[in-house]
Amino acid sequence: MASLRESLADNSDFQKLLAEMPRSDGRKNNEPRPIRITPNYTMHAAGSILVETGKTKVICTASVEEGVPPFLRGSGGGWLTAEYGMLPGSTSTRKKRDTGGKIDGRTQEIQRLIGRSLRTIINLKTLGERTVWIDCDVIQADGGTRTASITGGFVALILALRHIQRKRKFNPPPVKQFLSAISVGIVNGQPMLDLKYDEDSKAEVDANLVMLDDHTIIEIQGTGETKSFTRDQLNTMLDYAESGLAKHFAAQKEVLGGYLFK
Amino acid sequence: MASLRESLADNSDFQKLLAEMPRSDGRKNNEPRPIRITPNYTMHAAGSILVETGKTKVICTASVEEGVPPFLRGSGGGWLTAEYGMLPGSTSTRKKRDTGGKIDGRTQEIQRLIGRSLRTIINLKTLGERTVWIDCDVIQADGGTRTASITGGFVALILALRHIQRKRKFNPPPVKQFLSAISVGIVNGQPMLDLKYDEDSKAEVDANLVMLDDHTIIEIQGTGETKSFTRDQLNTMLDYAESGLAKHFAAQKEVLGGYLFK
Amino acid sequence: MASLRESLADNSDFQKLLAEMPRSDGRKNNEPRPIRITPNYTMHAAGSILVETGKTKVICTASVEEGVPPFLRGSGGGWLTAEYGMLPGSTSTRKKRDTGGKIDGRTQEIQRLIGRSLRTIINLKTLGERTVWIDCDVIQADGGTRTASITGGFVALILALRHIQRKRKFNPPPVKQFLSAISVGIVNGQPMLDLKYDEDSKAEVDANLVMLDDHTIIEIQGTGETKSFTRDQLNTMLDYAESGLAKHFAAQKEVLGGYLFK
Amino acid sequence: MASLRESLADNSDFQKLLAEMPRSDGRKNNEPRPIRITPNYTMHAAGSILVETGKTKVICTASVEEGVPPFLRGSGGGWLTAEYGMLPGSTSTRKKRDTGGKIDGRTQEIQRLIGRSLRTIINLKTLGERTVWIDCDVIQADGGTRTASITGGFVALILALRHIQRKRKFNPPPVKQFLSAISVGIVNGQPMLDLKYDEDSKAEVDANLVMLDDHTIIEIQGTGETKSFTRDQLNTMLDYAESGLAKHFAAQKEVLGGYLFK
Amino acid sequence: MASLRESLADNSDFQKLLAEMPRSDGRKNNEPRPIRITPNYTMHAAGSILVETGKTKVICTASVEEGVPPFLRGSGGGWLTAEYGMLPGSTSTRKKRDTGGKIDGRTQEIQRLIGRSLRTIINLKTLGERTVWIDCDVIQADGGTRTASITGGFVALILALRHIQRKRKFNPPPVKQFLSAISVGIVNGQPMLDLKYDEDSKAEVDANLVMLDDHTIIEIQGTGETKSFTRDQLNTMLDYAESGLAKHFAAQKEVLGGYLFK
Amino acid sequence: MASLRESLADNSDFQKLLAEMPRSDGRKNNEPRPIRITPNYTMHAAGSILVETGKTKVICTASVEEGVPPFLRGSGGGWLTAEYGMLPGSTSTRKKRDTGGKIDGRTQEIQRLIGRSLRTIINLKTLGERTVWIDCDVIQADGGTRTASITGGFVALILALRHIQRKRKFNPPPVKQFLSAISVGIVNGQPMLDLKYDEDSKAEVDANLVMLDDHTIIEIQGTGETKSFTRDQLNTMLDYAESGLAKHFAAQKEVLGGYLFK
Repeated sequence: MASLRESLADNSDFQKLLAEMPRSDGRKNNEPRPIRITPNYTMHAAGSILVETGKTKVICTASVEEGVPPFLRGSGGGWLTAEYGMLPGSTSTRKKRDTGGKIDGRTQEIQRLIGRSLRTIINLKTLGERTVWIDCDVIQADGGTRTASITGGFVALILALRHIQRKRKFNPPPVKQFLSAISVGIVNGQPMLDLKYDEDSKAEVDANLVMLDDHTIIEIQGTGETKSFTRDQLNTMLDYAESGLAKHFAAQKEVLGGYLFK
Repeated sequence: MASLRESLADNSDFQKLLAEMPRSDGRKNNEPRPIRITPNYTMHAAGSILVETGKTKVICTASVEEGVPPFLRGSGGGWLTAEYGMLPGSTSTRKKRDTGGKIDGRTQEIQRLIGRSLRTIINLKTLGERTVWIDCDVIQADGGTRTASITGGFVALILALRHIQRKRKFNPPPVKQFLSAISVGIVNGQPMLDLKYDEDSKAEVDANLVMLDDHTIIEIQGTGETKSFTRDQLNTMLDYAESGLAKHFAAQKEVLGGYLFK
Repeated sequence: MASLRESLADNSDFQKLLAEMPRSDGRKNNEPRPIRITPNYTMHAAGSILVETGKTKVICTASVEEGVPPFLRGSGGGWLTAEYGMLPGSTSTRKKRDTGGKIDGRTQEIQRLIGRSLRTIINLKTLGERTVWIDCDVIQADGGTRTASITGGFVALILALRHIQRKRKFNPPPVKQFLSAISVGIVNGQPMLDLKYDEDSKAEVDANLVMLDDHTIIEIQGTGETKSFTRDQLNTMLDYAESGLAKHFAAQKEVLGGYLFK
Repeated sequence: MASLRESLADNSDFQKLLAEMPRSDGRKNNEPRPIRITPNYTMHAAGSILVETGKTKVICTASVEEGVPPFLRGSGGGWLTAEYGMLPGSTSTRKKRDTGGKIDGRTQEIQRLIGRSLRTIINLKTLGERTVWIDCDVIQADGGTRTASITGGFVALILALRHIQRKRKFNPPPVKQFLSAISVGIVNGQPMLDLKYDEDSKAEVDANLVMLDDHTIIEIQGTGETKSFTRDQLNTMLDYAESGLAKHFAAQKEVLGGYLFK
Repeated sequence: MASLRESLADNSDFQKLLAEMPRSDGRKNNEPRPIRITPNYTMHAAGSILVETGKTKVICTASVEEGVPPFLRGSGGGWLTAEYGMLPGSTSTRKKRDTGGKIDGRTQEIQRLIGRSLRTIINLKTLGERTVWIDCDVIQADGGTRTASITGGFVALILALRHIQRKRKFNPPPVKQFLSAISVGIVNGQPMLDLKYDEDSKAEVDANLVMLDDHTIIEIQGTGETKSFTRDQLNTMLDYAESGLAKHFAAQKEVLGGYLFK
Repeated sequence: MASLRESLADNSDFQKLLAEMPRSDGRKNNEPRPIRITPNYTMHAAGSILVETGKTKVICTASVEEGVPPFLRGSGGGWLTAEYGMLPGSTSTRKKRDTGGKIDGRTQEIQRLIGRSLRTIINLKTLGERTVWIDCDVIQADGGTRTASITGGFVALILALRHIQRKRKFNPPPVKQFLSAISVGIVNGQPMLDLKYDEDSKAEVDANLVMLDDHTIIEIQGTGETKSFTRDQLNTMLDYAESGLAKHFAAQKEVLGGYLFK
């Protein structure tokens, strides 16, 4: 049985066949899930959206507080930080809350990724001593929650900056480029875009790409979970991701009226 | 000025006047906010609802896991526990996450209240060694989040038990009575039902009542935040709460089809 | 057997019989345990007492420190906070110390109750930026430790304020009313005052009442542990509590010489 | 001024004078404070005492629980552990509770010392898989709380073992020797026995001695807080401690009726 | 001034000039630092090495313990986990120890990366219920500590497996490929291999590559710290990393005698 | 068997025989292990050494940071604190890292001992508001790690002070005496100097002595782990320790060029 599986893995006709088969939700390998962004989803935060990519649903809010972390006090500059959480009922097996005194490693990596990505497109030096909080809370998970958080967190950030500008609280720093993220991976030897949970959980390679709308990369992370991958495979994954992000940027532009700041 | 305020406080005509004035959202003192319960709000948990009382919105999910806490192992009986959280963006000032190693006292009191209330209406001895988790996550807060969590958590619990019954996972213990909760208080000397945040934050007395639909009490908590209160005032508050809960029970019955178990 | 128990529960003659039977220590249902307050029990704290209600013994000390928690800094006003602990040897089964990084929920609820109650009777705005610590440490537990802590903590507070006044450290804010607390509950269908541990552990309903000596209520908490209760039963419990508190106020007045401040 | 102090420090006549001057409470340098041990101080723990050395007061309880720490499970042998705490009001400046997640280093050293000392005199291998808890809680502190805890903890331990024997719970391991502890130090160049807080806080050298009644040493700890000390001074301190411990052993024997086990 | 910098950044002649200038330690942009691996550096752990890349020095030890984390108990398979630390004195500014209750995010990411990488090359299913601990402790840091930890940790792992095989403790699972890691980045617009601390701290892009000796990728992580990067730049970085890793594999093979298992 | 062991323990001829037998590494009972101190072991810390006593190896670094703990702020004086750690691979059974939120009691006692000892020989009042950190990290353990840390930490401290003086950062306080530490114990009834791990783990008595080179004592700690000891035995142990420390002082003087400050 194992030898059948192995011989199939090396059989290029079989691989070609696999590449043409539709995925469990009928998508092609290079096809992203539909994305929907609902602005002003809750009433309190300066910026607030619900982002849905397929069945994955994340509430992203952006809030601005006076004050900065200790390492920036007196610098005159600001900070942006992100927090990420999953509601206990958001996953098929209930997820324990992160309240026991330490955040698990996965959560911490995701928070750091979201914050690091969004910090690159805003000039924190001109924000004043203020902190932007991007909160991403998953209410329903079906793969790709971290990339949805970045795509949605970006929109919440812009909404918050516009709100501040409109309320004349202070003059927010401009953001000049759209930023979005998507996942990609290799499943059964096939590069595949925007993995659902059932695909993600059996992927041999799992990657995330954060890009700007000028086709440059902000962050690439690719991990051979069970197999290593070649540079050719990496290039195919990057091609898929780029094409998928084009749809994300379109969705962001639609909900934001096509511009960042007027 | 203070003496004017004080003399008005003792002036029964002025109090009568106050009693007749509508509240900031036009309600009468004994009028609850509209309640809406959306069943099956998310797809993973066995039971899941969104409860809205006015602008307060809480997602309640109920999950059942095999296993019980150490103090029940080997007893053959089960457990029900509740967790409560507020999304950071759910309040007007961003709420820090409870991840720093300890849950704050308010959160703990609320969790204990929700769990204690719901444990009274389910026979945990016949549940088997399983744990029911009731997760209440506030996505938008405008006062009364703990009582909304109880009212909504009850429905999520029933939905979860029905789901288990339908899937023939095991035979869940019956629940025989409806249970709901509402807040009541004294603002400007006036007993008032179902306080919004602006009322709650200036209330002299703050109380919560958990009742069954046979008019008996499961829990009463009343605190003189800035003033003590008389037994007469307590009785008025109880009258108000009873009438408000009638509407909650109606909403629960509507979404549950009028019955608990068939 | 169960049906006998149930038919007895509904049998009013049997209930009347129960109501007339003495309790395990010979008390009537509406009779509190003897209370004894020993002032100046230890030498260091500004105020210090030992309070005994029956076999329950609690050391209460009140200390005043310069400084306030962060949320009050710069406000010019003060703060009062309470801490509660049980010596490990104070209970029949050794109680684990609260040193493992988190205070258990019960302890936290009790601390919050004691602090909240005592804050209502002192004008913290005129205290200056100082913090009053009320420490309640149970050295022997037999039910009612939280209410004994409030009754005793009140006396320790007054002694501390007098000490400060006498030492001319600063001019403490006046306290104008006596405050005390007592427990009440329903055991075997019978409302019962000031429950001992053996009664408390089998009570169907458990309630605590904090009152001023003008018969107004500062806090009421009533929980149906295993059964819900009617408003009539609530009223009987409130009647019992009021009569019991009269004896507490008398004990406080005796040890304080009948007055609060001269 | 400093030179006067220094020249006096080297002046042997002055030192001789100092040696003859009485201490702040009138004691001679080699004179211990009166010790008093009250047995059965609280009702729940198997063994319970109040120990007073001068104004220092410590409640010591001994409890025996089934079960042992993980490293002993399956060994058939038992364990003895000690915990030490100070009530917040026990010191002249209120002591913060050890609840913030970590025990301070001083507390931990004291707990380890008490436990280590008492473990040497009991054959834990014949205790069965049980744990003896020695809880020492200081209700009033005036120096020497750790040595009082050892002296008192020993008596609580014996009372607990006798209680177990009397109740025929199991056959406790015999204890064959009395054990006690006392502090000693160097103040103003003078070796001094059983330091009160005012002496302790200005001592140049601070030492504790735990001994058996056969004049052998279980533990010696001597620290030059501000000055180093010679072996001659060490010997004088050991002489003082031995004579002081004779009185402790007498007090232990009196309260225990002169024997350990019958 | 800023405009000069900007115009230079876009000036291709200036970029060419920069590309030909030697780095602060005289290396070319695509030249790695010398690597040295000292086997059997300490005596207790099953496998132990000191790895030096330039001035960066890391002690890596590999230990094997019986038992696995809870999620694998009963599975029959094993686990490999890595821990990473920096001695406080290893950096130019003293690094606080990770003892305050939580590991910082950077440490956690590094530990996860090391463990994830090494888990891919060992068949944990045939390890039995045992855990391999890879401990990487930086004693001197000058950039690239995480990649040095992977390169060195791999050798410690092989040494440990050989030790187990030699001692006939059990039959360890074979490892079939060499694995190593190196850093790469973009500094002043120039792709650059194996960054020292002074280069790393001003890099615009920071990347790490973990590869097998068959030229396939196990993990790629690239972050635009202050600038995004193009796919062309990514390819140059990958070329540099591949050539640098060839020298790492050579060093590993030399110290291991050219083979993995005999 | 036990009675043979016991009769041998009391047999003075047998004891004499034991006293003359060489130890497992061929040393006499009063012979210390060779000590080696390598200065400037790492490049970043102001002072840095590797100390080896036999197979025990400890890296000690001394760093000076601006600022002091809260209790000294505004005092103008400085602080010295020590931290101690063992690399996980430094012991025969892997040692868990101290990252789980609390430092174990042994670590804390050792840190306190190192810090307390070194604080006695430096005038912190003239250091300015600065903190000296002494970090002692064991890379290979074979008994006596705490005393090696003190002996080595002293040298790191002097090197750091000299570095500060040379760099004219500020004028460091002078240190006037050499300080060193050594362990001593009783094994099989025999007093023994500088215990290796195999001796330490079966010692009846375990002691540590910290002394100055004028033969005065800074700290003595002696614990009867399994047996009590007499004052005669204590004196023999002190004699051994003094002679062993003479060799430590010689090693310190050699590496420091025979002087403390010029």
